[in-house]
Amino acid sequence: MRRAGGWGSVRAMSSTTPRPILLPADRLQAALEAITARIGAAYVLTADADTHAYLEEPRGLFKGVTPAVVRPANTEDVAFVVKTCAELGVPLVPQGGNTGLVGGQVPFGALLLSLNRLNKVRALDATDLTLTAEAGCTLHQIQQAAADADCLFPLSIASEGTCQIGGNLATNAGGTAVLRYGNTRELALGLEVVLADGRIWNGLSRLRKDNTGYDLRNLFIGSEGTLGIITAAVLRLYPKPRKRATALIGVTDVHQVLALFRRLRTVAGDTLTGFEFLPDVGMEMVLKHMPGAVRALQGQHAFYALAELTSTRQDDDLGAMVEGVLGEAFEAGEVEDAVIASSEAQSLALWKLREDLSEAQKFEGGSIKHDVSVPVSKVAEFVEKATLAVEAHMPGLRTCAFGHIGDGNVHFNLSQPLGMDKQAYLDSWEAFNRIVHDIVVSYGGSISAEHGIGFLKREELVHYKDPVALDVMAQIKAALDPAGLLNPGKMLVAKGE
Amino acid sequence: MRRAGGWGSVRAMSSTTPRPILLPADRLQAALEAITARIGAAYVLTADADTHAYLEEPRGLFKGVTPAVVRPANTEDVAFVVKTCAELGVPLVPQGGNTGLVGGQVPFGALLLSLNRLNKVRALDATDLTLTAEAGCTLHQIQQAAADADCLFPLSIASEGTCQIGGNLATNAGGTAVLRYGNTRELALGLEVVLADGRIWNGLSRLRKDNTGYDLRNLFIGSEGTLGIITAAVLRLYPKPRKRATALIGVTDVHQVLALFRRLRTVAGDTLTGFEFLPDVGMEMVLKHMPGAVRALQGQHAFYALAELTSTRQDDDLGAMVEGVLGEAFEAGEVEDAVIASSEAQSLALWKLREDLSEAQKFEGGSIKHDVSVPVSKVAEFVEKATLAVEAHMPGLRTCAFGHIGDGNVHFNLSQPLGMDKQAYLDSWEAFNRIVHDIVVSYGGSISAEHGIGFLKREELVHYKDPVALDVMAQIKAALDPAGLLNPGKMLVAKGE
Repeated sequence: MRRAGGWGSVRAMSSTTPRPILLPADRLQAALEAITARIGAAYVLTADADTHAYLEEPRGLFKGVTPAVVRPANTEDVAFVVKTCAELGVPLVPQGGNTGLVGGQVPFGALLLSLNRLNKVRALDATDLTLTAEAGCTLHQIQQAAADADCLFPLSIASEGTCQIGGNLATNAGGTAVLRYGNTRELALGLEVVLADGRIWNGLSRLRKDNTGYDLRNLFIGSEGTLGIITAAVLRLYPKPRKRATALIGVTDVHQVLALFRRLRTVAGDTLTGFEFLPDVGMEMVLKHMPGAVRALQGQHAFYALAELTSTRQDDDLGAMVEGVLGEAFEAGEVEDAVIASSEAQSLALWKLREDLSEAQKFEGGSIKHDVSVPVSKVAEFVEKATLAVEAHMPGLRTCAFGHIGDGNVHFNLSQPLGMDKQAYLDSWEAFNRIVHDIVVSYGGSISAEHGIGFLKREELVHYKDPVALDVMAQIKAALDPAGLLNPGKMLVAKGE
Repeated sequence: MRRAGGWGSVRAMSSTTPRPILLPADRLQAALEAITARIGAAYVLTADADTHAYLEEPRGLFKGVTPAVVRPANTEDVAFVVKTCAELGVPLVPQGGNTGLVGGQVPFGALLLSLNRLNKVRALDATDLTLTAEAGCTLHQIQQAAADADCLFPLSIASEGTCQIGGNLATNAGGTAVLRYGNTRELALGLEVVLADGRIWNGLSRLRKDNTGYDLRNLFIGSEGTLGIITAAVLRLYPKPRKRATALIGVTDVHQVLALFRRLRTVAGDTLTGFEFLPDVGMEMVLKHMPGAVRALQGQHAFYALAELTSTRQDDDLGAMVEGVLGEAFEAGEVEDAVIASSEAQSLALWKLREDLSEAQKFEGGSIKHDVSVPVSKVAEFVEKATLAVEAHMPGLRTCAFGHIGDGNVHFNLSQPLGMDKQAYLDSWEAFNRIVHDIVVSYGGSISAEHGIGFLKREELVHYKDPVALDVMAQIKAALDPAGLLNPGKMLVAKGE
């Protein structure tokens, strides 16, 4: 990122926010004039009251700074904005629903390019099981469009009401259905992308098989807007499930969660679409703080597993299957108590215990979060080892390890010791990162399972990523965005920065 | 590709084979000496008798030419070979099982780097459902290793006894299980790759979720050895199916094949793992030429669908489900006759009717082949339209359109008119390509669904591929292999060539 002296409108920054990029005022002015002439003054926002919502991110870790938020209405106008910026050397940051957790969508002086007016579902074909959506469609909007056509778009994450599919693709979002359906990457067949020079690549393929050249689609997916701007995508749909079974199971330790997962997967196969876990401390936080949360099992258990099975077959008795497997697990001494939802309302109530956990943690003071993954077979070992390490580092710490055990994805979140000063606690963020990430990497794991790198984790990436991989990434960045104008300072640390 | 005058050992070439690359003898000599010193003279083959098998490809379209076949034993030695070649400017062509159908594995003067000694399964974990294999393992070897651990590696293609997983990955092979499990791309979690400069990228991740940077894995998968040499991979396994049902169904036209596919998929969901089709002309060829082929239905039918369902659930009555769906289809007038296999032997006999088709076609004279895909909903329309077009172009032509209808993948193969001269017929290859590919592209389809580009289709790629995509591909190639030494002249047509 270029660093230089002051820029007219720069505001106060938080300690973790970098100094903003400086741009010559004349070039910025020329870019904004050209863009305004093209897309209309109503869609070029500069007043604080208008840009405010685009510059605050969910965790409040970073404070965005931008000379303007520009909101083109369609792909051609996005291309015009990018081309104009390329010609004038103006950096820009693409933004979807602004729900990212690693600061990838936050501008530090660059122009903010919002995709939120590209919000049409362009096409849906129930035979092809494809849906073509513009980047600014919310995930919920796409789920709903699929459901209206008696189909399923399986991506499901906590922010689905607000996040946009362009952002989901740019960050390769994960969520609770990855076990069966994969990450966002695996749900995309084609893309439309505006390249760094403003050209449009129309790769809106609806094909399952297409071996005609390099896989550009997957290169842009997960690149966090640093290689191109995704403006639309062809998404994969699935036949809508007709039957569902949800079970909550209490066990005595995290190894039994894993044993239960293996046991259930062997029998249930593809019908096992979700397998989550949370610890006693997390369950108690939810029961204490979240309205409507109801204790579903008798007593407390060291860990809880939440299993979801679905089937497209109307005659499928999933409940009986789960009951059979849980009966065997009970006899093997692997399960303490279990309940199977017998209605949709009960199913939602069980899911709520898991989904409300992040929210419940907020009532317990500062939380230092790690979004990590390890091979599935190592999850239990990892949770035990990392818990011992962090609790040795700070007595009184409350480890809340939960997440998607079927994907090896653990949200290893650490609630502060009771009574400790919140800021003093949060100051140990980096120290805990080092402890946890060292253990993650020792298991061949990832320091960012589903949230991406953005600005938050780019130094961690340099620390942990294979240098050869980092070098190849830099070569690709230099090839596709030689001027470094797309989402500068995100994911990669530029030379000389 | 560089073109120049003679080279000592160049042999006669077929008309479609390009003139070989010329290299200064001293640099080639230096490379071979260094490589021989490292990997041993026994693994540097130069005699025709030794190199012969590496230079003939399955269809006999191209004749390979190479100064030597080098066979390193492990990743470090592959890296040494590549680094030595990079330093001396010697081009090389990686080769797996030599089963590719588009000439991607054929050297035209470059060194041939065989991966066939890297043939170990390094690891298997039945909880993670991962298998780590070296590039030279045959697909069959991997299927077997998975089965031995009570797991499934679902990739299945005609050449599975001979083809190697490195080649499957380099070409993103497809096959009959893509409907449920995806292409090879979707079956890989991690890769180990030797880069153009000889460095090794260790990307052997066993993770389902890992959002730490650009998707290098998918960039190398399907790049046909033009960006790097895949030396090992972590593959995804699945729980082994316990139940199987196979049905052969006769229908009156190709639209009914599609209708049946929709009907069955809606009910069977994930248990529908394969859905193939073949035409009457193809079925009759198989029954006429292939030993042991038995007519499974009464009378002849315009088209046949072959449906395969599998389930991990021991108690799953797939046969009853298929019977129910076929009963409904019969009442709706969509089906003429159908049979459901009631034993494993019957199931294999039904599959044999489909799998022997390519072989049976060889008895019917020249065959001009197209490996294309269109959106699933357009398959029937495409087959009808393209059949009319090619049969208008050459009366007496026998169109044999078959393949993987569930993926929209049609092998649109044209058997010559009876009695026509074979070579005269094959001379019309390009004319038929143009007719068929024009129609494919008009449906948003692909001119290479699963076989790749190699040397055979690179001019077609230039003709049909979005120029923006071609340009991005060239940028990536220039970034990762600036000297153009990896599989030169394949996939992309180099500038000035």
